[in-house]
Amino acid sequence: MTANRVTVVEKIMNANDHMADLNKQRLDHAGVLSANLMASPGSGKTSFILKTIEALAPDYQIGVVEGDTAPVTIDADKILAAGMPAVQINTGGDCHLDAVMLKAGLDQLPLPQLDLLIVENVGNLVCPAAFNLGTHLNILIASIPEGDDKPYKYPAIYRNLDVLIINKIDLLPYIRFNMDYFRQGVEMLNPNLTTFTVSCVTGEGMDAWKQWMAARIEAKKAECTATKRL
Amino acid sequence: MTANRVTVVEKIMNANDHMADLNKQRLDHAGVLSANLMASPGSGKTSFILKTIEALAPDYQIGVVEGDTAPVTIDADKILAAGMPAVQINTGGDCHLDAVMLKAGLDQLPLPQLDLLIVENVGNLVCPAAFNLGTHLNILIASIPEGDDKPYKYPAIYRNLDVLIINKIDLLPYIRFNMDYFRQGVEMLNPNLTTFTVSCVTGEGMDAWKQWMAARIEAKKAECTATKRL
Repeated sequence: MTANRVTVVEKIMNANDHMADLNKQRLDHAGVLSANLMASPGSGKTSFILKTIEALAPDYQIGVVEGDTAPVTIDADKILAAGMPAVQINTGGDCHLDAVMLKAGLDQLPLPQLDLLIVENVGNLVCPAAFNLGTHLNILIASIPEGDDKPYKYPAIYRNLDVLIINKIDLLPYIRFNMDYFRQGVEMLNPNLTTFTVSCVTGEGMDAWKQWMAARIEAKKAECTATKRL
Repeated sequence: MTANRVTVVEKIMNANDHMADLNKQRLDHAGVLSANLMASPGSGKTSFILKTIEALAPDYQIGVVEGDTAPVTIDADKILAAGMPAVQINTGGDCHLDAVMLKAGLDQLPLPQLDLLIVENVGNLVCPAAFNLGTHLNILIASIPEGDDKPYKYPAIYRNLDVLIINKIDLLPYIRFNMDYFRQGVEMLNPNLTTFTVSCVTGEGMDAWKQWMAARIEAKKAECTATKRL
Protein backbone atom coordinates (compact mmCIF):
# COMPACT_ATOMS: atom_id res chain seq x y z
CA MET A 1 0.00 0.00 0.00
CA THR A 2 2.84 2.36 0.81
CA ALA A 3 4.42 1.75 -2.61
CA ASN A 4 1.11 2.52 -4.35
CA ARG A 5 0.79 5.74 -2.44
CA VAL A 6 4.30 6.92 -3.31
CA THR A 7 3.76 6.14 -6.99
CA VAL A 8 0.55 8.12 -7.16
CA VAL A 9 2.04 11.11 -5.37
CA GLU A 10 4.99 11.12 -7.77
CA LYS A 11 2.69 11.16 -10.79
CA ILE A 12 0.72 14.06 -9.31
CA MET A 13 3.92 16.01 -8.65
CA ASN A 14 5.18 15.46 -12.18
CA ALA A 15 1.87 16.58 -13.65
CA ASN A 16 2.02 19.64 -11.39
CA ASP A 17 5.56 20.58 -12.47
CA HIS A 18 4.63 20.18 -16.14
CA MET A 19 1.65 22.48 -15.70
CA ALA A 20 3.80 24.92 -13.70
CA ASP A 21 6.18 25.17 -16.69
CA LEU A 22 3.24 25.96 -18.99
CA ASN A 23 1.96 28.62 -16.57
CA LYS A 24 5.38 30.27 -16.49
CA GLN A 25 5.68 30.27 -20.30
CA ARG A 26 2.24 31.84 -20.56
CA LEU A 27 3.06 34.56 -18.02
CA ASP A 28 6.44 35.22 -19.68
CA HIS A 29 4.78 35.51 -23.07
CA ALA A 30 2.30 38.05 -21.68
CA GLY A 31 5.12 39.95 -19.93
CA VAL A 32 3.39 39.57 -16.57
CA LEU A 33 5.56 39.30 -13.47
CA SER A 34 3.98 36.82 -11.08
CA ALA A 35 4.30 36.11 -7.38
CA ASN A 36 3.12 33.21 -5.24
CA LEU A 37 2.27 34.80 -1.88
CA MET A 38 2.34 32.34 1.01
CA ALA A 39 1.80 32.70 4.77
CA SER A 40 -0.03 31.43 7.84
CA PRO A 41 -3.72 32.22 8.16
CA GLY A 42 -4.14 35.78 9.38
CA SER A 43 -0.65 37.04 8.59
CA GLY A 44 -2.11 39.88 6.53
CA LYS A 45 -1.78 38.53 2.97
CA THR A 46 -4.86 40.29 1.63
CA SER A 47 -4.08 43.55 3.45
CA PHE A 48 -0.56 43.42 1.99
CA ILE A 49 -1.93 42.86 -1.52
CA LEU A 50 -4.32 45.81 -1.07
CA LYS A 51 -1.44 48.04 0.10
CA THR A 52 0.67 46.86 -2.85
CA ILE A 53 -2.16 47.71 -5.24
CA GLU A 54 -2.52 51.14 -3.60
CA ALA A 55 1.22 51.77 -4.07
CA LEU A 56 1.55 50.48 -7.65
CA ALA A 57 -1.91 51.12 -9.14
CA PRO A 58 -1.22 54.52 -10.63
CA ASP A 59 1.38 52.91 -12.91
CA TYR A 60 0.52 49.23 -13.17
CA GLN A 61 -2.38 46.83 -13.64
CA ILE A 62 -2.40 44.09 -11.02
CA GLY A 63 -4.41 40.87 -11.19
CA VAL A 64 -5.01 38.66 -8.19
CA VAL A 65 -5.82 34.97 -7.80
CA GLU A 66 -7.31 34.20 -4.38
CA GLY A 67 -6.92 30.65 -3.11
CA ASP A 68 -9.41 29.58 -0.43
CA THR A 69 -10.39 26.24 1.06
CA ALA A 70 -14.06 27.19 1.01
CA PRO A 71 -16.40 28.98 -1.41
CA VAL A 72 -16.02 32.38 0.24
CA THR A 73 -15.20 35.48 -1.77
CA ILE A 74 -14.28 37.75 1.17
CA ASP A 75 -10.73 38.36 -0.12
CA ALA A 76 -11.55 38.43 -3.85
CA ASP A 77 -14.30 40.99 -3.18
CA LYS A 78 -11.77 43.30 -1.48
CA ILE A 79 -9.52 43.18 -4.56
CA LEU A 80 -12.44 43.90 -6.91
CA ALA A 81 -13.44 46.81 -4.67
CA ALA A 82 -9.88 48.14 -5.13
CA GLY A 83 -10.55 48.21 -8.88
CA MET A 84 -8.39 45.28 -9.95
CA PRO A 85 -9.37 41.97 -11.60
CA ALA A 86 -9.57 39.04 -9.18
CA VAL A 87 -10.42 35.38 -9.46
CA GLN A 88 -11.33 33.19 -6.48
CA ILE A 89 -10.24 29.56 -6.52
CA ASN A 90 -11.94 27.22 -4.07
CA THR A 91 -9.58 24.30 -3.42
CA GLY A 92 -12.48 22.25 -2.05
CA GLY A 93 -10.73 21.74 1.28
CA ASP A 94 -7.23 21.20 -0.13
CA CYS A 95 -4.50 22.88 1.88
CA HIS A 96 -2.67 24.58 -1.01
CA LEU A 97 -3.02 25.77 -4.60
CA ASP A 98 -1.42 23.72 -7.36
CA ALA A 99 -0.39 24.57 -10.91
CA VAL A 100 -3.60 23.18 -12.44
CA MET A 101 -5.69 25.41 -10.19
CA LEU A 102 -3.56 28.41 -11.15
CA LYS A 103 -4.06 27.58 -14.84
CA ALA A 104 -7.83 27.76 -14.24
CA GLY A 105 -7.30 31.17 -12.64
CA LEU A 106 -5.12 32.44 -15.53
CA ASP A 107 -7.86 31.40 -17.97
CA GLN A 108 -10.20 33.90 -16.34
CA LEU A 109 -7.85 36.89 -16.14
CA PRO A 110 -7.09 39.51 -18.81
CA LEU A 111 -3.37 38.59 -18.91
CA PRO A 112 -2.35 40.89 -21.81
CA GLN A 113 -3.53 43.89 -19.79
CA LEU A 114 -1.71 42.93 -16.58
CA ASP A 115 1.76 43.94 -15.38
CA LEU A 116 1.75 41.96 -12.15
CA LEU A 117 -0.11 38.87 -11.00
CA ILE A 118 -0.28 38.08 -7.29
CA VAL A 119 -1.43 34.62 -6.29
CA GLU A 120 -2.65 34.50 -2.70
CA ASN A 121 -2.10 30.89 -1.67
CA VAL A 122 -4.08 29.11 1.08
CA GLY A 123 -3.02 30.23 4.57
CA ASN A 124 -0.61 27.44 5.52
CA LEU A 125 3.13 27.19 6.30
CA VAL A 126 3.50 23.55 5.24
CA CYS A 127 1.66 22.40 2.11
CA PRO A 128 2.12 25.35 -0.31
CA ALA A 129 5.91 24.90 -0.08
CA ALA A 130 5.66 21.57 -1.92
CA PHE A 131 3.80 22.80 -5.01
CA ASN A 132 5.48 24.84 -7.73
CA LEU A 133 2.85 27.05 -9.40
CA GLY A 134 5.08 28.38 -12.17
CA THR A 135 5.20 31.91 -10.76
CA HIS A 136 8.41 33.97 -10.97
CA LEU A 137 8.68 34.76 -7.27
CA ASN A 138 7.95 32.85 -4.11
CA ILE A 139 7.11 35.34 -1.37
CA LEU A 140 6.39 34.57 2.28
CA ILE A 141 4.78 36.91 4.78
CA ALA A 142 5.94 36.33 8.35
CA SER A 143 3.86 38.16 10.90
CA ILE A 144 5.21 39.50 14.21
CA PRO A 145 2.40 38.01 16.38
CA GLU A 146 3.23 34.52 15.01
CA GLY A 147 6.43 34.55 17.04
CA ASP A 148 10.15 34.51 16.30
CA ASP A 149 10.58 30.71 16.10
CA LYS A 150 8.74 30.03 12.85
CA PRO A 151 11.85 29.59 10.59
CA TYR A 152 13.05 26.88 12.98
CA LYS A 153 9.68 25.10 13.04
CA TYR A 154 8.64 25.45 9.39
CA PRO A 155 12.01 25.33 7.58
CA ALA A 156 10.79 23.92 4.23
CA ILE A 157 8.81 27.02 3.28
CA TYR A 158 11.74 29.34 4.09
CA ARG A 159 14.21 27.40 1.91
CA ASN A 160 12.62 28.14 -1.47
CA LEU A 161 11.79 31.80 -1.00
CA ASP A 162 12.83 34.73 -3.17
CA VAL A 163 11.42 37.38 -0.85
CA LEU A 164 10.43 37.57 2.80
CA ILE A 165 8.00 40.19 4.10
CA ILE A 166 8.02 40.74 7.86
CA ASN A 167 4.57 42.20 8.51
CA LYS A 168 2.72 43.84 11.44
CA ILE A 169 5.83 45.53 12.84
CA ASP A 170 3.48 48.09 14.40
CA LEU A 171 2.72 45.35 16.97
CA LEU A 172 6.40 44.95 18.02
CA PRO A 173 5.97 47.08 21.18
CA TYR A 174 3.24 44.76 22.48
CA ILE A 175 4.77 41.36 21.72
CA ARG A 176 7.86 39.43 22.76
CA PHE A 177 9.65 38.94 19.42
CA ASN A 178 13.43 38.59 19.19
CA MET A 179 14.26 39.92 15.72
CA ASP A 180 17.89 38.69 15.90
CA TYR A 181 16.79 35.14 16.71
CA PHE A 182 14.22 35.23 13.90
CA ARG A 183 16.73 36.56 11.35
CA GLN A 184 19.36 33.98 12.37
CA GLY A 185 16.84 31.23 11.67
CA VAL A 186 16.07 32.67 8.24
CA GLU A 187 19.76 33.21 7.41
CA MET A 188 20.55 29.58 8.23
CA LEU A 189 17.93 28.34 5.73
CA ASN A 190 18.13 30.98 3.04
CA PRO A 191 21.24 33.20 3.22
CA ASN A 192 20.98 36.79 1.98
CA LEU A 193 17.24 36.52 1.38
CA THR A 194 15.68 39.77 0.15
CA THR A 195 13.61 40.99 3.11
CA PHE A 196 11.20 43.87 3.67
CA THR A 197 9.92 44.91 7.07
CA VAL A 198 6.48 46.49 6.84
CA SER A 199 3.25 47.47 8.53
CA CYS A 200 0.07 47.52 6.46
CA VAL A 201 -1.56 49.63 9.19
CA THR A 202 0.98 52.48 9.39
CA GLY A 203 2.39 52.01 5.86
CA GLU A 204 5.94 51.77 7.24
CA GLY A 205 8.34 50.02 4.87
CA MET A 206 5.94 50.01 1.92
CA ASP A 207 7.98 52.52 -0.10
CA ALA A 208 11.06 50.27 -0.27
CA TRP A 209 8.85 47.34 -1.25
CA LYS A 210 7.10 49.42 -3.94
CA GLN A 211 10.38 50.50 -5.50
CA TRP A 212 11.82 46.98 -5.53
CA MET A 213 8.63 45.57 -7.05
CA ALA A 214 8.35 48.31 -9.69
CA ALA A 215 11.93 47.56 -10.80
CA ARG A 216 11.10 43.84 -11.13
CA ILE A 217 7.93 44.59 -13.13
CA GLU A 218 9.91 46.85 -15.50
CA ALA A 219 12.58 44.16 -15.91
CA LYS A 220 9.95 41.55 -16.86
CA LYS A 221 8.35 43.94 -19.36
CA ALA A 222 11.74 44.70 -20.94
CA GLU A 223 12.56 40.98 -21.15
CA CYS A 224 9.23 40.31 -22.86
CA THR A 225 9.69 43.14 -25.37
CA ALA A 226 13.24 41.96 -26.17
CA THR A 227 12.00 38.38 -26.75
CA LYS A 228 9.23 39.53 -29.08
CA ARG A 229 11.71 41.60 -31.16
CA LEU A 230 13.91 38.55 -31.79
CA MET B 1 -5.47 8.03 -12.19
CA THR B 2 -8.12 9.93 -10.24
CA ALA B 3 -9.91 6.71 -9.28
CA ASN B 4 -6.63 5.18 -8.05
CA ARG B 5 -5.92 8.21 -5.95
CA VAL B 6 -9.31 8.20 -4.26
CA THR B 7 -9.02 4.49 -3.42
CA VAL B 8 -5.63 4.92 -1.78
CA VAL B 9 -6.76 7.92 0.28
CA GLU B 10 -9.80 5.96 1.50
CA LYS B 11 -7.62 3.06 2.64
CA ILE B 12 -5.34 5.44 4.53
CA MET B 13 -8.32 7.11 6.22
CA ASN B 14 -9.75 3.76 7.30
CA ALA B 15 -6.41 2.69 8.74
CA ASN B 16 -6.22 6.02 10.57
CA ASP B 17 -9.71 5.70 12.05
CA HIS B 18 -8.96 2.15 13.18
CA MET B 19 -5.81 3.30 14.96
CA ALA B 20 -7.70 6.29 16.42
CA ASP B 21 -10.18 3.86 18.03
CA LEU B 22 -7.29 1.90 19.57
CA ASN B 23 -5.73 5.12 20.89
CA LYS B 24 -9.01 6.13 22.52
CA GLN B 25 -9.47 2.69 24.14
CA ARG B 26 -5.95 2.88 25.51
CA LEU B 27 -6.47 6.37 26.94
CA ASP B 28 -9.86 5.39 28.40
CA HIS B 29 -8.33 2.32 30.01
CA ALA B 30 -5.62 4.47 31.61
CA GLY B 31 -8.21 7.05 32.71
CA VAL B 32 -6.36 9.82 30.88
CA LEU B 33 -8.42 12.66 29.43
CA SER B 34 -6.91 13.67 26.09
CA ALA B 35 -7.12 16.74 23.89
CA ASN B 36 -6.06 17.38 20.30
CA LEU B 37 -4.95 21.02 20.28
CA MET B 38 -5.07 22.61 16.84
CA ALA B 39 -4.35 26.14 15.55
CA SER B 40 -2.47 28.25 13.02
CA PRO B 41 1.28 28.62 13.45
CA GLY B 42 1.97 31.21 16.11
CA SER B 43 -1.45 31.25 17.74
CA GLY B 44 0.13 30.48 21.11
CA LYS B 45 -0.48 26.73 21.40
CA THR B 46 2.68 26.03 23.44
CA SER B 47 2.19 29.09 25.66
CA PHE B 48 -1.38 27.97 26.32
CA ILE B 49 -0.20 24.45 27.23
CA LEU B 50 2.39 25.94 29.61
CA LYS B 51 -0.26 28.13 31.27
CA THR B 52 -2.57 25.11 31.54
CA ILE B 53 0.22 23.11 33.20
CA GLU B 54 0.86 26.02 35.59
CA ALA B 55 -2.85 26.10 36.52
CA LEU B 56 -3.41 22.34 36.88
CA ALA B 57 0.02 21.03 37.93
CA PRO B 58 -0.52 21.16 41.69
CA ASP B 59 -3.30 18.60 41.32
CA TYR B 60 -2.70 16.76 38.05
CA GLN B 61 0.02 15.13 35.94
CA ILE B 62 -0.05 16.36 32.35
CA GLY B 63 1.72 14.70 29.43
CA VAL B 64 2.30 16.45 26.11
CA VAL B 65 2.86 15.18 22.56
CA GLU B 66 4.44 17.86 20.37
CA GLY B 67 3.87 17.55 16.62
CA ASP B 68 6.39 19.35 14.42
CA THR B 69 7.19 19.22 10.71
CA ALA B 70 10.92 19.34 11.43
CA PRO B 71 13.29 17.73 13.96
CA VAL B 72 13.21 20.68 16.37
CA THR B 73 12.50 20.23 20.06
CA ILE B 74 11.86 23.91 20.91
CA ASP B 75 8.31 23.23 22.17
CA ALA B 76 8.97 19.83 23.78
CA ASP B 77 11.92 21.33 25.68
CA LYS B 78 9.63 24.01 27.16
CA ILE B 79 7.25 21.32 28.47
CA LEU B 80 10.11 19.30 29.98
CA ALA B 81 11.40 22.49 31.62
CA ALA B 82 7.94 22.87 33.18
CA GLY B 83 8.46 19.46 34.79
CA MET B 84 6.04 17.39 32.71
CA PRO B 85 6.73 14.46 30.36
CA ALA B 86 6.82 15.40 26.67
CA VAL B 87 7.42 13.54 23.42
CA GLN B 88 8.29 15.25 20.16
CA ILE B 89 6.94 13.76 16.93
CA ASN B 90 8.59 14.89 13.71
CA THR B 91 6.05 14.42 10.90
CA GLY B 92 8.86 14.60 8.34
CA GLY B 93 7.24 17.50 6.53
CA ASP B 94 3.65 16.25 6.80
CA CYS B 95 1.13 18.95 7.59
CA HIS B 96 -0.70 17.17 10.42
CA LEU B 97 -0.44 14.40 13.02
CA ASP B 98 -2.28 11.15 12.39
CA ALA B 99 -3.43 8.36 14.73
CA VAL B 100 -0.38 6.18 13.97
CA MET B 101 1.97 9.01 14.94
CA LEU B 102 0.01 9.56 18.15
CA LYS B 103 0.29 5.83 18.95
CA ALA B 104 4.08 6.18 18.69
CA GLY B 105 3.86 9.10 21.12
CA LEU B 106 1.65 7.18 23.58
CA ASP B 107 4.21 4.33 23.55
CA GLN B 108 6.78 6.70 25.03
CA LEU B 109 4.65 8.31 27.74
CA PRO B 110 3.96 7.03 31.31
CA LEU B 111 0.19 6.83 30.67
CA PRO B 112 -0.79 5.25 34.03
CA GLN B 113 0.71 8.26 35.82
CA LEU B 114 -1.06 10.88 33.69
CA ASP B 115 -4.39 12.63 34.25
CA LEU B 116 -4.38 14.70 31.09
CA LEU B 117 -2.68 14.34 27.71
CA ILE B 118 -2.42 17.34 25.44
CA VAL B 119 -1.47 16.70 21.81
CA GLU B 120 -0.11 19.82 20.13
CA ASN B 121 -0.86 19.29 16.46
CA VAL B 122 1.11 20.88 13.60
CA GLY B 123 0.29 24.58 13.18
CA ASN B 124 -2.27 24.43 10.37
CA LEU B 125 -5.98 25.29 9.97
CA VAL B 126 -6.65 22.83 7.14
CA CYS B 127 -5.03 19.38 7.34
CA PRO B 128 -5.39 18.47 11.05
CA ALA B 129 -9.19 18.76 10.72
CA ALA B 130 -9.25 15.67 8.48
CA PHE B 131 -7.46 13.25 10.81
CA ASN B 132 -9.11 11.77 13.89
CA LEU B 133 -6.41 10.99 16.47
CA GLY B 134 -8.64 9.20 18.97
CA THR B 135 -8.45 11.97 21.58
CA HIS B 136 -11.52 12.86 23.66
CA LEU B 137 -11.57 16.56 22.84
CA ASN B 138 -10.85 18.58 19.72
CA ILE B 139 -9.72 22.04 20.78
CA LEU B 140 -8.90 24.96 18.49
CA ILE B 141 -7.04 28.11 19.48
CA ALA B 142 -8.07 31.17 17.49
CA SER B 143 -5.75 34.11 17.98
CA ILE B 144 -6.89 37.74 17.87
CA PRO B 145 -4.10 38.90 15.47
CA GLU B 146 -5.20 36.27 12.93
CA GLY B 147 -8.31 38.32 12.23
CA ASP B 148 -12.05 37.88 12.67
CA ASP B 149 -12.75 36.15 9.34
CA LYS B 150 -11.11 32.78 10.02
CA PRO B 151 -14.31 30.77 10.71
CA TYR B 152 -15.60 31.88 7.30
CA LYS B 153 -12.36 30.96 5.53
CA TYR B 154 -11.46 27.71 7.33
CA PRO B 155 -14.91 26.26 8.13
CA ALA B 156 -13.92 22.57 8.23
CA ILE B 157 -11.78 22.87 11.35
CA TYR B 158 -14.51 24.79 13.24
CA ARG B 159 -17.19 22.17 12.50
CA ASN B 160 -15.72 19.31 14.54
CA LEU B 161 -14.62 21.20 17.63
CA ASP B 162 -15.55 20.54 21.24
CA VAL B 163 -13.85 23.65 22.60
CA LEU B 164 -12.71 26.97 21.16
CA ILE B 165 -10.05 29.08 22.88
CA ILE B 166 -9.87 32.73 21.78
CA ASN B 167 -6.30 33.69 22.67
CA LYS B 168 -4.22 36.90 22.83
CA ILE B 169 -7.15 39.08 23.91
CA ASP B 170 -4.56 41.42 25.48
CA LEU B 171 -3.90 42.55 21.88
CA LEU B 172 -7.53 43.58 21.22
CA PRO B 173 -6.86 47.31 21.78
CA TYR B 174 -4.19 47.32 19.03
CA ILE B 175 -5.98 45.29 16.35
CA ARG B 176 -9.14 45.63 14.29
CA PHE B 177 -11.11 42.54 15.34
CA ASN B 178 -14.91 42.43 15.29
CA MET B 179 -15.80 39.90 18.00
CA ASP B 180 -19.49 39.79 16.98
CA TYR B 181 -18.60 38.97 13.36
CA PHE B 182 -16.15 36.29 14.52
CA ARG B 183 -18.67 34.70 16.92
CA GLN B 184 -21.42 34.74 14.27
CA GLY B 185 -19.13 32.77 11.96
CA VAL B 186 -18.43 30.21 14.68
CA GLU B 187 -22.11 29.93 15.70
CA MET B 188 -23.10 29.21 12.09
CA LEU B 189 -20.69 26.25 11.90
CA ASN B 190 -20.82 24.93 15.46
CA PRO B 191 -23.76 26.24 17.52
CA ASN B 192 -23.31 26.61 21.28
CA LEU B 193 -19.61 25.70 21.12
CA THR B 194 -17.88 25.85 24.53
CA THR B 195 -15.63 28.90 24.27
CA PHE B 196 -12.99 30.46 26.53
CA THR B 197 -11.52 33.90 25.96
CA VAL B 198 -7.98 34.12 27.36
CA SER B 199 -4.63 35.85 27.39
CA CYS B 200 -1.53 33.77 28.17
CA VAL B 201 0.35 37.03 28.85
CA THR B 202 -1.99 38.57 31.44
CA GLY B 203 -3.57 35.28 32.57
CA GLU B 204 -7.07 36.66 31.94
CA GLY B 205 -9.68 33.94 31.45
CA MET B 206 -7.41 31.09 32.60
CA ASP B 207 -9.36 30.47 35.82
CA ALA B 208 -12.58 29.59 34.01
CA TRP B 209 -10.61 27.30 31.67
CA LYS B 210 -8.84 25.62 34.60
CA GLN B 211 -12.12 24.91 36.39
CA TRP B 212 -13.79 23.48 33.28
CA MET B 213 -10.76 21.30 32.51
CA ALA B 214 -10.40 20.04 36.10
CA ALA B 215 -14.07 18.96 36.05
CA ARG B 216 -13.51 17.06 32.79
CA ILE B 217 -10.39 15.35 34.18
CA GLU B 218 -12.31 14.28 37.30
CA ALA B 219 -15.19 12.96 35.17
CA LYS B 220 -12.78 10.85 33.09
CA LYS B 221 -11.13 9.46 36.25
CA ALA B 222 -14.52 8.60 37.75
CA GLU B 223 -15.60 6.89 34.51
CA CYS B 224 -12.40 4.82 34.50
CA THR B 225 -12.79 3.78 38.14
CA ALA B 226 -16.44 2.80 37.56
CA THR B 227 -15.49 0.69 34.53
CA LYS B 228 -12.74 -1.15 36.44
CA ARG B 229 -15.17 -1.96 39.29
CA LEU B 230 -17.58 -3.70 36.92
